[in-house]
Amino acid sequence: MRGPMKFLGTIVLSRESDVSLQTQLAGQLKGMIQHHELRAGERLPSSRDLATALHVSRNTVIASYDALVTEGYLESRDRSGIFVGRAAEAFQQSASSAPNDGRRDHRPVRAPVLHFRAPVPFRPSQPDVRLFPVTIWNRLRARLLRRGTGILNYQSIFASGLDGLREIIAGYLRDSRDVRCDWREIAITSGSQQALFLLATLLVRRGDRVYMEDPGYLGARLALKQAGAKIVPIPVDADGICLPHAESQPVSLIYVTPSRQFPMGHCMSLGRRLELLQAAVRMRTWIIEDDYDSEFRYGSPPLPSLQHLDDHRRVIYVGTFSKILFPSLRIGYVVLPPKLVDRFAALKHVCEDHGPLIDQATLAAFMESGAFYTHLRRCRRAYAERRQCLLESVYHAGLPLEFPNTDGGMNLAALIRSSLDDYRLSEEFRSSGLDIPPLSRYSIRHAHPGFLLGFTAFEPRAIARAVERMAAVMEA
Amino acid sequence: MRGPMKFLGTIVLSRESDVSLQTQLAGQLKGMIQHHELRAGERLPSSRDLATALHVSRNTVIASYDALVTEGYLESRDRSGIFVGRAAEAFQQSASSAPNDGRRDHRPVRAPVLHFRAPVPFRPSQPDVRLFPVTIWNRLRARLLRRGTGILNYQSIFASGLDGLREIIAGYLRDSRDVRCDWREIAITSGSQQALFLLATLLVRRGDRVYMEDPGYLGARLALKQAGAKIVPIPVDADGICLPHAESQPVSLIYVTPSRQFPMGHCMSLGRRLELLQAAVRMRTWIIEDDYDSEFRYGSPPLPSLQHLDDHRRVIYVGTFSKILFPSLRIGYVVLPPKLVDRFAALKHVCEDHGPLIDQATLAAFMESGAFYTHLRRCRRAYAERRQCLLESVYHAGLPLEFPNTDGGMNLAALIRSSLDDYRLSEEFRSSGLDIPPLSRYSIRHAHPGFLLGFTAFEPRAIARAVERMAAVMEA
Repeated sequence: MRGPMKFLGTIVLSRESDVSLQTQLAGQLKGMIQHHELRAGERLPSSRDLATALHVSRNTVIASYDALVTEGYLESRDRSGIFVGRAAEAFQQSASSAPNDGRRDHRPVRAPVLHFRAPVPFRPSQPDVRLFPVTIWNRLRARLLRRGTGILNYQSIFASGLDGLREIIAGYLRDSRDVRCDWREIAITSGSQQALFLLATLLVRRGDRVYMEDPGYLGARLALKQAGAKIVPIPVDADGICLPHAESQPVSLIYVTPSRQFPMGHCMSLGRRLELLQAAVRMRTWIIEDDYDSEFRYGSPPLPSLQHLDDHRRVIYVGTFSKILFPSLRIGYVVLPPKLVDRFAALKHVCEDHGPLIDQATLAAFMESGAFYTHLRRCRRAYAERRQCLLESVYHAGLPLEFPNTDGGMNLAALIRSSLDDYRLSEEFRSSGLDIPPLSRYSIRHAHPGFLLGFTAFEPRAIARAVERMAAVMEA
Repeated sequence: MRGPMKFLGTIVLSRESDVSLQTQLAGQLKGMIQHHELRAGERLPSSRDLATALHVSRNTVIASYDALVTEGYLESRDRSGIFVGRAAEAFQQSASSAPNDGRRDHRPVRAPVLHFRAPVPFRPSQPDVRLFPVTIWNRLRARLLRRGTGILNYQSIFASGLDGLREIIAGYLRDSRDVRCDWREIAITSGSQQALFLLATLLVRRGDRVYMEDPGYLGARLALKQAGAKIVPIPVDADGICLPHAESQPVSLIYVTPSRQFPMGHCMSLGRRLELLQAAVRMRTWIIEDDYDSEFRYGSPPLPSLQHLDDHRRVIYVGTFSKILFPSLRIGYVVLPPKLVDRFAALKHVCEDHGPLIDQATLAAFMESGAFYTHLRRCRRAYAERRQCLLESVYHAGLPLEFPNTDGGMNLAALIRSSLDDYRLSEEFRSSGLDIPPLSRYSIRHAHPGFLLGFTAFEPRAIARAVERMAAVMEA
């Protein structure tokens, strides 16, 4: 065996591995350099010789060499071949002199492990992503990438989102939720969580008082607390938020979920809506209307949005596509009063500039093609059936639960008709493989012991089985 | 023609349009409802009849009807057909009674306009996205989507990014930049801008003093100012940042670009690096090392990262894939000292939860496959040639410019060898179709009149032509 091939025996490549031959080879060569089995300046065999010896294609060897040249482990010298690089020498020196602090562990990089968890019953607010037409989505995405590479560039002018998508969303919100807006008042965000975070950052100064429904949405509470808000918990009843009659101190913001109070599920009455809007004008405060799942209604037609009734532009409307399409897409939006449009865009620009544009453009095409509406109807049909199945299963199992509202978007709040502790039961459900948050978790001061049951991600059979498991836990 | 077909004549569908027949039809029907040409309760023709009359497939009509049923414009009544819905009646009433405030403009939604601008010479920090292997990227993406729909779900456990990608990045940074870290100390962000924004939010309280290189990077300055920082501009020379010898007041943060000072291009000397690290320990302050384009070097091998020298874990290392892959991807990362890992993850969770996971998983596969390194080498070759072309063109044109540093990543700073005003010249370049920022724009106190010339996104011929145009402007 010629000189450069001396190390050949230590290379073992597996065709059974998930890792490509090329990556295996590069990783092993790198290891040999790191462990001084190959020294700086040493010549490697030609790609042809090594390929023959290892019974792999020459391209595999070339690609491995190329990767290591790029990383500086190897050097290519014109016409004389491939050598272990000088950079490797520096590495070898530092590796032997550096203290072993556990941070210089040069194991070959492991292949990415991609085990994504599907939600477990009855985790709230989870769409059934298996219903999503990935094929159509990908086809639209491929089509727009074929139009040119322009979309791959920086596009800071789109910090508030692609104009085309904002225009389509404006039309969609006008038609479906009676939201009154110009498309320029819409900003695209990374999920509704980013919208809430940015609004809190923009509108709340440290120590400001903010009204929140109690019980209420935890994501909003976190965002407001991050901004330094002093949260004032306001009770809710079947008509919605019960504002105090008199308020002596200023309030910077009121956060509400009028379409379906989160987590209780009540729809805010028209009277309460008008009171709220009047209070906002009187108190000179902003209102965030979080319309998180109003796309899913199974009984009475939804009331128009609160924003629709607002003649003073004090309502900021927040929504998301995470629950209609798929959550890992991370596209939400906010409809801003004219006064806040520029300030929000400036903050968004500082916070992350624009979001991923290929997804935004694909969503625009998806809505424009009508596939969005077809998918929405498909989800509504499936979810209506699942809601029915959940209610019937609970009834037949005789669980001591009461549903104050059954026209649920994606979740149903269930009150316990007994003195059982919802926190403790939730823990016991978890031990039985169920993921059912206690209602009390969403409360600051006004607790309603019970559970929040999400039904949308689970097929009827899974729902029935999970209710049986709940029954077993609650009887014990 | 039967009753329900009376309106047929007003429908015009174009097969030449970019808009699908189904969307055209739905849009026109909606318009007719909005303009009272179809009234609430009125019956529409059967899908079969309308399809025949319009010479389109029945599926097209069914899809249009479906979309309008979903939006509430039409109603389907079992066995008796499709009717204009009651919701439409409400709309027609409100449309005629509502004041025209310009916000209820119910034009049919326009198709998304997707005109993305390519960068113009010599806009700084723009990769040439035409070099990016979109086909390979899409193949890897399709492969991982075929593994299952799990990745579409919420995955809040990945607020700091996919474990697999973090692990690969840790290996990449160890190998390429001598960054010392465990993969759990890496957090994925929406571009490096989000990393800077979150770090500023985390580490700076309103009124805190922060050291910034002057001239320096505007994105970082914006993020720090947003957090309420009092920016203290520190001059730079050819060795890097020139810290003051004594400092009586506390400093919360020092922001530096050691690999290539932005915008001047100097590499911070080893001596200055050690001084900086000692100062950080003495002043009990954090250092942000923004390593924004160190992947692109054409001459001497790069120094290891500043983070590599830091035995006290005071350096926070920030990087991005925007410039190696494509900017609209929005994937950056931060390597955190152990103390900050949990706090950063908690803030990231509040700010947006996790980012888009399909892109992250695709990037992991792209790096793992080796295609990442192939692409990087391809860019390096092209950019080296372009840098050479820019320097030669400027030399041949005899422009009064001087380059303090020519081993430029993506940009070259050019100082003016005369008393010309770089702001005014930049304006004049803009009128000639050039996008060349004045160097003074990056300064707070220590201005160096000149320009920042990005060369990476432009082919040699475009570079030569643009330099001729610069010459024409500067002579005039």
